[in-house]
Amino acid sequence: MPDNAPKSADLETFANPAPQRDYDITIEAPEFTCVCPKTGHPDFATITLVYTPDKLCVELKAYKLYIHAWRNVGIFHEAVTNRIADDLIKALKPRKLRLTGAFHAHGGITTSVTVNYSAK
Amino acid sequence: MPDNAPKSADLETFANPAPQRDYDITIEAPEFTCVCPKTGHPDFATITLVYTPDKLCVELKAYKLYIHAWRNVGIFHEAVTNRIADDLIKALKPRKLRLTGAFHAHGGITTSVTVNYSAK
Amino acid sequence: MPDNAPKSADLETFANPAPQRDYDITIEAPEFTCVCPKTGHPDFATITLVYTPDKLCVELKAYKLYIHAWRNVGIFHEAVTNRIADDLIKALKPRKLRLTGAFHAHGGITTSVTVNYSAK
Amino acid sequence: MPDNAPKSADLETFANPAPQRDYDITIEAPEFTCVCPKTGHPDFATITLVYTPDKLCVELKAYKLYIHAWRNVGIFHEAVTNRIADDLIKALKPRKLRLTGAFHAHGGITTSVTVNYSAK
Amino acid sequence: MPDNAPKSADLETFANPAPQRDYDITIEAPEFTCVCPKTGHPDFATITLVYTPDKLCVELKAYKLYIHAWRNVGIFHEAVTNRIADDLIKALKPRKLRLTGAFHAHGGITTSVTVNYSAK
Amino acid sequence: MPDNAPKSADLETFANPAPQRDYDITIEAPEFTCVCPKTGHPDFATITLVYTPDKLCVELKAYKLYIHAWRNVGIFHEAVTNRIADDLIKALKPRKLRLTGAFHAHGGITTSVTVNYSAK
Amino acid sequence: MPDNAPKSADLETFANPAPQRDYDITIEAPEFTCVCPKTGHPDFATITLVYTPDKLCVELKAYKLYIHAWRNVGIFHEAVTNRIADDLIKALKPRKLRLTGAFHAHGGITTSVTVNYSAK
Amino acid sequence: MPDNAPKSADLETFANPAPQRDYDITIEAPEFTCVCPKTGHPDFATITLVYTPDKLCVELKAYKLYIHAWRNVGIFHEAVTNRIADDLIKALKPRKLRLTGAFHAHGGITTSVTVNYSAK
Amino acid sequence: MPDNAPKSADLETFANPAPQRDYDITIEAPEFTCVCPKTGHPDFATITLVYTPDKLCVELKAYKLYIHAWRNVGIFHEAVTNRIADDLIKALKPRKLRLTGAFHAHGGITTSVTVNYSAK
Amino acid sequence: MPDNAPKSADLETFANPAPQRDYDITIEAPEFTCVCPKTGHPDFATITLVYTPDKLCVELKAYKLYIHAWRNVGIFHEAVTNRIADDLIKALKPRKLRLTGAFHAHGGITTSVTVNYSAK
Repeated sequence: MPDNAPKSADLETFANPAPQRDYDITIEAPEFTCVCPKTGHPDFATITLVYTPDKLCVELKAYKLYIHAWRNVGIFHEAVTNRIADDLIKALKPRKLRLTGAFHAHGGITTSVTVNYSAK
Repeated sequence: MPDNAPKSADLETFANPAPQRDYDITIEAPEFTCVCPKTGHPDFATITLVYTPDKLCVELKAYKLYIHAWRNVGIFHEAVTNRIADDLIKALKPRKLRLTGAFHAHGGITTSVTVNYSAK
Repeated sequence: MPDNAPKSADLETFANPAPQRDYDITIEAPEFTCVCPKTGHPDFATITLVYTPDKLCVELKAYKLYIHAWRNVGIFHEAVTNRIADDLIKALKPRKLRLTGAFHAHGGITTSVTVNYSAK
Repeated sequence: MPDNAPKSADLETFANPAPQRDYDITIEAPEFTCVCPKTGHPDFATITLVYTPDKLCVELKAYKLYIHAWRNVGIFHEAVTNRIADDLIKALKPRKLRLTGAFHAHGGITTSVTVNYSAK
Repeated sequence: MPDNAPKSADLETFANPAPQRDYDITIEAPEFTCVCPKTGHPDFATITLVYTPDKLCVELKAYKLYIHAWRNVGIFHEAVTNRIADDLIKALKPRKLRLTGAFHAHGGITTSVTVNYSAK
Repeated sequence: MPDNAPKSADLETFANPAPQRDYDITIEAPEFTCVCPKTGHPDFATITLVYTPDKLCVELKAYKLYIHAWRNVGIFHEAVTNRIADDLIKALKPRKLRLTGAFHAHGGITTSVTVNYSAK
Repeated sequence: MPDNAPKSADLETFANPAPQRDYDITIEAPEFTCVCPKTGHPDFATITLVYTPDKLCVELKAYKLYIHAWRNVGIFHEAVTNRIADDLIKALKPRKLRLTGAFHAHGGITTSVTVNYSAK
Repeated sequence: MPDNAPKSADLETFANPAPQRDYDITIEAPEFTCVCPKTGHPDFATITLVYTPDKLCVELKAYKLYIHAWRNVGIFHEAVTNRIADDLIKALKPRKLRLTGAFHAHGGITTSVTVNYSAK
Repeated sequence: MPDNAPKSADLETFANPAPQRDYDITIEAPEFTCVCPKTGHPDFATITLVYTPDKLCVELKAYKLYIHAWRNVGIFHEAVTNRIADDLIKALKPRKLRLTGAFHAHGGITTSVTVNYSAK
Repeated sequence: MPDNAPKSADLETFANPAPQRDYDITIEAPEFTCVCPKTGHPDFATITLVYTPDKLCVELKAYKLYIHAWRNVGIFHEAVTNRIADDLIKALKPRKLRLTGAFHAHGGITTSVTVNYSAK
């Protein structure tokens, strides 16, 4: 992982206000950008997170800053989507999580990557 | 819960006209607004309720006033969505209920919260 | 039920041309209007019917006139949707039926009611 | 069935190039028109076919001509949709087939008819 | 298969960065064109690939060039869609794969072909 | 004009709060319905009013009731649109006015009627 | 002009209810079909008429039948659009008229033809 | 004007970075809400500002707070739209300005108000 | 101009059926493809032609073949759009013509080129 | 202007292939990002350029790199849009130019800036 990448510890959390039930939180971040490690050109994506919190929820402002912190990191589509999912799973220990990175078209080709996780 | 929040008892009901069958009622309220307890800035959301009534249905005008009554309450997205679900479950004792709060984007981030409930 | 409401018997039928198989017929009627029994104001809705015919299909012109016949009847959303479903079930004895009344927004609130029926 | 209706034998076929697997072919024909046998007025529909071929696929140009051949046939919505499905099942002997006739609105009423077939 | 068709070996791959989990990669290529072997007229399609990688992912630039390489090949819709799926299955040995070729309308008829594959 | 038609005098007004400038007020009423004088069938339309007030503005609740009052009046599309324009011109004496009645499709035919008026 | 084409005289009219002002009537007919004189294949179009009536308006049912009457006439896009405009100008003597024939795509090519007429 | 209304002086400004040319700035604020002075019910609108700056531009954060400050003010649609325009004209002295308040539907009626201003 | 480019003479014409009036013909061809002379990669565009015919109209099938004939020609966006316009002006001598080439996005950049011509 | 901003000289050009006529080139770049000089947060925009070339056209790859080069520059919406317009006017000396920067919503507020230039 590149040295300038954000860390799971940057994802501040707060106590889930309704741990007695399963419910879903969806967070859509259309302003993700990183850099292609091969060409140095910027990549743009919408990162969509859906998770069922257990004890912790992610704090929205910290999540926004975490997403922004990828801005000058060189990393491929498949790797960064898996890495963001790993960071969130580590920080939140959610019951369930789905993360999608939907990247803008380049060379006439559009790519998206979707990770599903379940604690059970 | 803030003192100025509306109460479950504000949700007037009427007798379900077809208790012999399971059927669904969907109510979409795009004019929900409350206040962020941290920044004091207003938050806006569409609150969508889908429920299967048992003995009681919620009266539409009372529901509208209940939704409006959150206008100056300081409360977070996750908390208010769970609280409205709790108030409706207490007032209606529905067979099933799903409540979604879809909040407007802020800081380039869109959030929605979805609660599912089943009496069984 | 109000005296001026249409009756199940108004729903003319014809013999299902393919009773040997299960298939679905969808009929969308966007020109439904009735009257709120409390305020006297008109209500507007799209009534969507999906059914699997058994021995009988509903005749389209008769169905249109039946829908129009609610024009000056005073009745609530939940009651009229269940009543139209009941009239169709009585007239057609379908294998399956789903009826949705999607009412226009009033007071910033949109409501729809969906009834599901299965003969088995 | 009216004498001027097209026949199943009009549907030319060719050998399925990948019979070793189940896969789906979808063909949308938005230029279907026939005639109402009661009023003589034209009816317009989009005919959508989805099927899993077994040994045979339908040839596209022959299918287009078959669809056009209904142009002056007097037949009801429910009957013609079932008939086209029957003709295709006879000609192709598909593993699975779904056929939908989505007719334009008349008298403020929109109708569609959907037939599902499975060889097993 | 025509001699000028691209080969499975043209599909360069790289090591899956997250083989420990099942996740999906979607690649949409709206700039596919080949030639009708009967009429010589060009055909245009959007090729959509969704797959769950096992040990290998397809390299995006090589995939783009592979798609472009069909430009002057004469081949039917059903055959080319199955062939692209075969080439990808051979090159990637994915856990799951779905490939859809959605061809532009011709003669008023729109066709799409969808292949599903599962390693198990 | 039918006896049961609403009158210009039903259109209550209030004093324009900004008579010092030309500005536009747009009011869209999608719940207009009247009756075809030939067939007795209901007609549905969206009535869109755009006007530049001079001394008077139309009161919204009175306008809504005026629109509803056409519900059981038998009148043709061209006549009712011109009549509503005449009633508004008489009641408001606006600097400019445009009124459109966009009627739902019947017999596969959609009609709209647009009247433009300028005081100068 | 083919012998089986409809005639201007088929377009019944009624007296303009508001000849004292210029106003516009728009009629959209999405169910136009005729036949290509070269290939015999059917053509489909949406015919959109916008006119400012002088002494006469076109009767909607007669216009619908006139549009339907082109069903089996062999005629090109450019010719039929100009001919329908000519028939309407002759029958209505409108102050202004615009007629558009928007034909469905064939061979991957979409065509529309627009005629403008002004009495002055 | 109600005492709790925001003032023109709340609209902070900064020096136009390109006063040598005419150019347009568009600001859309979909989170406007005020209160109906007659019923006490909340009203919601999108306020869209388009202006050509002269010496001054409006500061975005101050504009957002100004828009939010109408939250508990009782004022009609026509009055508040003209008042916001007046406040902006006083604060910015723009070369040109257009302000639209597009209010949510109530009672089945949607209203918008548009003010145009030109310094010349 | 590349040697393999199509020529103006490929554009067959027929006599304008209504030379007595100005009217517009719009032809949209979404299946244009050529090759980038620098990279050799394919470019895709929708070519939209709007013209007012004088003595001649372009024959649709010949126009389609002319558009297809650019398939393997290496030429830039700006040059090919001007060249197609020149070929049409030479072949048709139209009263007016507008030609737009709207190219697919590459490198995250979308380009279109629009040429306007008037005989006067 | 910040030191790390791109320069007009970065905009490579090529000779206009059709200087004998006025025509328009539109280039849409949805992947613009810069940094807010006050908060340090990233801003995102779509930059749309429409120009009539005189002697020179902008080279697309150089333009893409110029747009990307704003990535870490701190600059306000109004300033950067005017600056990009100035750089293009200096490099291309176009007959006409329009440049729009449409920025993503922040704080519930969406902004766009549009510059128009004409050589005459």
